[in-house]
Amino acid sequence: MEKNILLTIAYDGSNFSGWQKQPAAPTIQGHLESTLSSLFKKEILLSGTSRTDAGVHALGAKASFKADIGIPTEKIPMVVNNALCGREKGPFAIAPIRILDAEEKPADFHARFDCTGKTYVYKIMNSTEVDIFKRNYVYHVDKPLDIKKMRNAAEAFKGTHDFKSFESSGGNPRETTVRTIFDIKVTQSDELIEISVTGDGFLYNMVRIIAGTLVDVGRGKIDPDDLPRIIEAKDRTQAGHTAPPYGLYLAEVYYGDIERR
Amino acid sequence: MEKNILLTIAYDGSNFSGWQKQPAAPTIQGHLESTLSSLFKKEILLSGTSRTDAGVHALGAKASFKADIGIPTEKIPMVVNNALCGREKGPFAIAPIRILDAEEKPADFHARFDCTGKTYVYKIMNSTEVDIFKRNYVYHVDKPLDIKKMRNAAEAFKGTHDFKSFESSGGNPRETTVRTIFDIKVTQSDELIEISVTGDGFLYNMVRIIAGTLVDVGRGKIDPDDLPRIIEAKDRTQAGHTAPPYGLYLAEVYYGDIERR
Repeated sequence: MEKNILLTIAYDGSNFSGWQKQPAAPTIQGHLESTLSSLFKKEILLSGTSRTDAGVHALGAKASFKADIGIPTEKIPMVVNNALCGREKGPFAIAPIRILDAEEKPADFHARFDCTGKTYVYKIMNSTEVDIFKRNYVYHVDKPLDIKKMRNAAEAFKGTHDFKSFESSGGNPRETTVRTIFDIKVTQSDELIEISVTGDGFLYNMVRIIAGTLVDVGRGKIDPDDLPRIIEAKDRTQAGHTAPPYGLYLAEVYYGDIERR
Repeated sequence: MEKNILLTIAYDGSNFSGWQKQPAAPTIQGHLESTLSSLFKKEILLSGTSRTDAGVHALGAKASFKADIGIPTEKIPMVVNNALCGREKGPFAIAPIRILDAEEKPADFHARFDCTGKTYVYKIMNSTEVDIFKRNYVYHVDKPLDIKKMRNAAEAFKGTHDFKSFESSGGNPRETTVRTIFDIKVTQSDELIEISVTGDGFLYNMVRIIAGTLVDVGRGKIDPDDLPRIIEAKDRTQAGHTAPPYGLYLAEVYYGDIERR
């Protein structure tokens, strides 16, 4: 019997050209679909919520597929993870993609269209010394960052705004650039600064421009009080720089009533 | 004037086919030589101490070159690091290779032949949960490891022994398989176990077989009291498995009198 299966997926995006399948580049969707298809001996097509860019990671991405795969849903993570690790070199290798959970959904459930919100986390390492082993996983900023200013500035993003100032060109066409940010937090633990943003949806590069703008605030290049004006300008040139992709993590994807969370 | 320059180098070996230059594969030596050569506008050839394998990392590798490069020795790290980062994609990218130090040596100094010892560190993550973001940087062992047993077993390696049981085939021919281990430590911090080994030299895969054998001891597959017998057997099949390359770090390279350290 065909089931509609929703997967929760973590991935290290370092060596992939993003989520979306491409004919001649390694992608997360492509790698996962080919693994699932050869494992279950039928063509499996994934419908993902978010087409993350090259270098962007996920702690809890979601994608669904419809198929009769002949194994209990709760066994999917173990079976698929074994297959993914089997594609790596060496007997102990861990795959860059990992299934964290699989659940059965109603036939009319759609991973992308039914999504009501997402949380992204952006990781910054604020230290004078470079750690080359973290270069694919954090944005290294060697100048001191004023975390209080960053927190004050972040408040301005909360609520429903037209975020045109925080959109890069080159994304898919959108009906509207109005989005709602339910929550944004800036936390610090030793040298690691994390910006966590939850919203109903995000424009192209929106979290990376928010992160870059907050870094510019932390470095004193942008005044925290200027944020409302920058948002209102609806002009990309008013906001700060676009932070690099490798600091960005798709952390959670929500279905159902997100505002009550 | 030609100088003999000794570099201290850290590298993330994840995406390299090891140190040694190869015609058709990305290597640390190849990447660094081509960066230095185009930066200083003359052919720079590096003489390294250790030809680490694919996936192996370095915290403090050493390599020397002779050239008249026209800049003060103390500026070399900054200038070369800028050039290395310039070869990466994106404005904020950190290179996988980093020069930590540069010093001038006498004309007859040779990075490899004058080396009197090295410290390697082997990193194990002992946890039930997999962390995909560390998969290139630690050996993940999900079964519990008895650290006390590992420490007891490690004592047997200290001193001068014929380490034939701890050599893989396929390395360069050696005059002797006798080596001296000055020190070996097994430390634990939360889920991370580190094996730190200092010796006058190491056979092919020796540290990885020591690490794999200690993991087998920690899992109860090998008795710590068996270690002296395993060493004495001079037979690779008596020792434990070869731990994967990505947990291994060349930590320090010594010149001069190492035994008094």
